[in-house]
Amino acid sequence: MVKRNRNIEKVQPSYLFVDINQRKKAHIDANPDSNLISLGIGDTVLPLFDELAADLSTYAKNLGTFEGYSGYPDWNGPAPLREAIANAFYKDTCITADDIIVSDGSKPDLARMQLLFGDQTTVAVQNPVYPAYVDDSVISGKTGEYDPEKGQYKGIVYMPCTVGNNFFPDLNVERTDLIYFCSPNNPTGAVATREQLTELVNFALKNKSVVIFDSAYREFISDDKLPKSIYEIPGAEKCAIETSSFSKLVGFTGVRLGWTICPKGIEYDDGKSVFDDWKRVVGTTFNGPSILASAGGLAALSKPEGMKKQIAYYMENAATLRDVLEKKGIACYGGENSPYIWCKIEGKTSWDLFDSLLKANIVCTPGSGFGSCGEGFVRFSCFATHENVAKASKILEEWNP
Amino acid sequence: MVKRNRNIEKVQPSYLFVDINQRKKAHIDANPDSNLISLGIGDTVLPLFDELAADLSTYAKNLGTFEGYSGYPDWNGPAPLREAIANAFYKDTCITADDIIVSDGSKPDLARMQLLFGDQTTVAVQNPVYPAYVDDSVISGKTGEYDPEKGQYKGIVYMPCTVGNNFFPDLNVERTDLIYFCSPNNPTGAVATREQLTELVNFALKNKSVVIFDSAYREFISDDKLPKSIYEIPGAEKCAIETSSFSKLVGFTGVRLGWTICPKGIEYDDGKSVFDDWKRVVGTTFNGPSILASAGGLAALSKPEGMKKQIAYYMENAATLRDVLEKKGIACYGGENSPYIWCKIEGKTSWDLFDSLLKANIVCTPGSGFGSCGEGFVRFSCFATHENVAKASKILEEWNP
Repeated sequence: MVKRNRNIEKVQPSYLFVDINQRKKAHIDANPDSNLISLGIGDTVLPLFDELAADLSTYAKNLGTFEGYSGYPDWNGPAPLREAIANAFYKDTCITADDIIVSDGSKPDLARMQLLFGDQTTVAVQNPVYPAYVDDSVISGKTGEYDPEKGQYKGIVYMPCTVGNNFFPDLNVERTDLIYFCSPNNPTGAVATREQLTELVNFALKNKSVVIFDSAYREFISDDKLPKSIYEIPGAEKCAIETSSFSKLVGFTGVRLGWTICPKGIEYDDGKSVFDDWKRVVGTTFNGPSILASAGGLAALSKPEGMKKQIAYYMENAATLRDVLEKKGIACYGGENSPYIWCKIEGKTSWDLFDSLLKANIVCTPGSGFGSCGEGFVRFSCFATHENVAKASKILEEWNP
Repeated sequence: MVKRNRNIEKVQPSYLFVDINQRKKAHIDANPDSNLISLGIGDTVLPLFDELAADLSTYAKNLGTFEGYSGYPDWNGPAPLREAIANAFYKDTCITADDIIVSDGSKPDLARMQLLFGDQTTVAVQNPVYPAYVDDSVISGKTGEYDPEKGQYKGIVYMPCTVGNNFFPDLNVERTDLIYFCSPNNPTGAVATREQLTELVNFALKNKSVVIFDSAYREFISDDKLPKSIYEIPGAEKCAIETSSFSKLVGFTGVRLGWTICPKGIEYDDGKSVFDDWKRVVGTTFNGPSILASAGGLAALSKPEGMKKQIAYYMENAATLRDVLEKKGIACYGGENSPYIWCKIEGKTSWDLFDSLLKANIVCTPGSGFGSCGEGFVRFSCFATHENVAKASKILEEWNP
């Protein structure tokens, strides 16, 4: 008989969203008239901006003509889109269109990336952490068993990101082959400074580690002093793979478009180029993002005002929510250069806070779902309409945790 | 330093298309006025049919409204699309919408599927074979090293599909955990009969193997007696995973949409459900196909005439080409219920035939590129315009191999 992948056996069921949904359901069953306001999941709610929808519509229409039709995309995505990404986001770095490989999003790219590194590869993640980094590592055999007492997998180095260290890990840790790092961070909303990222890059260079840098929320950074890409840090081109996404940039969570950069200077211990393998992996396991998504990405980048307006809209939500919460004396982090606010009330667990907010008709995400250092926190997502955020603010003003 | 995935080291560079392109380039350089006709790569050339392009365009436009916008897709794809696929393709089988998981195509699904089975899993493929089945198996560690003398990987059971066995393998072979099977076949164009597929299913049930059945070309079958899905065979729901695609169905090679069925009755040796792991793998490594592609798929299935017309168009090409080739006394296989014609001329190698056709301005695919049993064959793809097929026919009439 066929054997199960022994690494999949290790993966723990993800109870977080199951739990959230069960509690939501119980609340709605008991209060059928309650209108829950979702500040939970990080999913975009605003429609595509007008010109983008119009361009995408025209592109779709033209797929019905010989001139406008096209078949299989290029393995690395359309050249004009790669040029546009390089121009929009990597102008002052050494990254060019040639380094950019367009995809259907960061999550699938993170999964494909596992194939580059063998199952002896060691991994470090931030704690709290976006769960896909961990699950990908487990399924691909880069970890040991799950330790139910710690709620962690053996073999993964979890780097605490807490109020005490400003949510940037103490790098006085065990060396690993891979280091996952997300900035602006999901869930903490923290953004690493230039100095912090320099420390991270130097740590990786010194240890000959590879940083897998997730910059999906880069455009939410408004403070010019904060780096939006790891390639703004000298040396990163020798040790960092960056993945990023149009999902939160222009509301493409459903349209599906992202990109990953694996600079040609990154090498394995045998001197072979990681990029060459990346090319092979992408070519074997993928057939490119939808040409519609690519066309949409190109259209979006040609109209940066539309993109900026959407981000400003969500960041207005963040400011509103932070303001209400802080006025109540609640400790808030993030939400200034990122769409997530990370909140803590002393003496309360994440689920205490979740339940108390649910009772008041607001759905958030319990921080403990992202790892042990998330305990006591909840995450508010700013991907909501102004209308709902206004309602939530009124509720929060009265809220008694 | 970071170690390379030792399985990727085994994968041989794919010289086939590099070789083809080099020879094409040399030909064009020497004959700048030659207009090459491509009957090589299996890529669609017809625009989307009018109503499909119109519906897709409307959907895109509506993404610019609150009513028409949507974010992250459901993990298994939109319910109406899964219903439509079940209705269109699985009506007389035990497969329902619940079994169908929508994706961005068969190739990425085949890659994700590797995660279900451990690296001790054994694999059988047809020879000749669509290269992705092999490369996926190698990269995921299911094979031994490459044997340059045989041009094969150790540990893979290659099942010859030849004129002698009507391109259906002799199943008197070593048992393996997985058996890849493609019908209608790429590259041979052969379609397994009901009796043959029954033999395959019974072989798998007896051996407790899992068949990975690729039905990407199913709608090119016009002979009602031939099965279009492996689930038309009793027992397949206990031993077969089927993957299929909109690529060739409606010209979605660029739009990217497919589906995979992993029936709930398939179990590992420990009794655990393969479907449960598939759900976990898809949820962890993927975020769904583009909502645009899904909307397009639903629109296409609501207008089956448009779909049928496109397939009929390509099959007209197949009939034209077969006719010309057979009139010359060339042995032709496939092209009757599949879009590929598989040709052989005694005493000629695949590259002899390729070069001779290239000299005559026709590009085909050398059969040897698909495995040792492809030697001596070339594959003609029928994904071309009538105009180009008419030109190619004129050339072929005069062609002296």
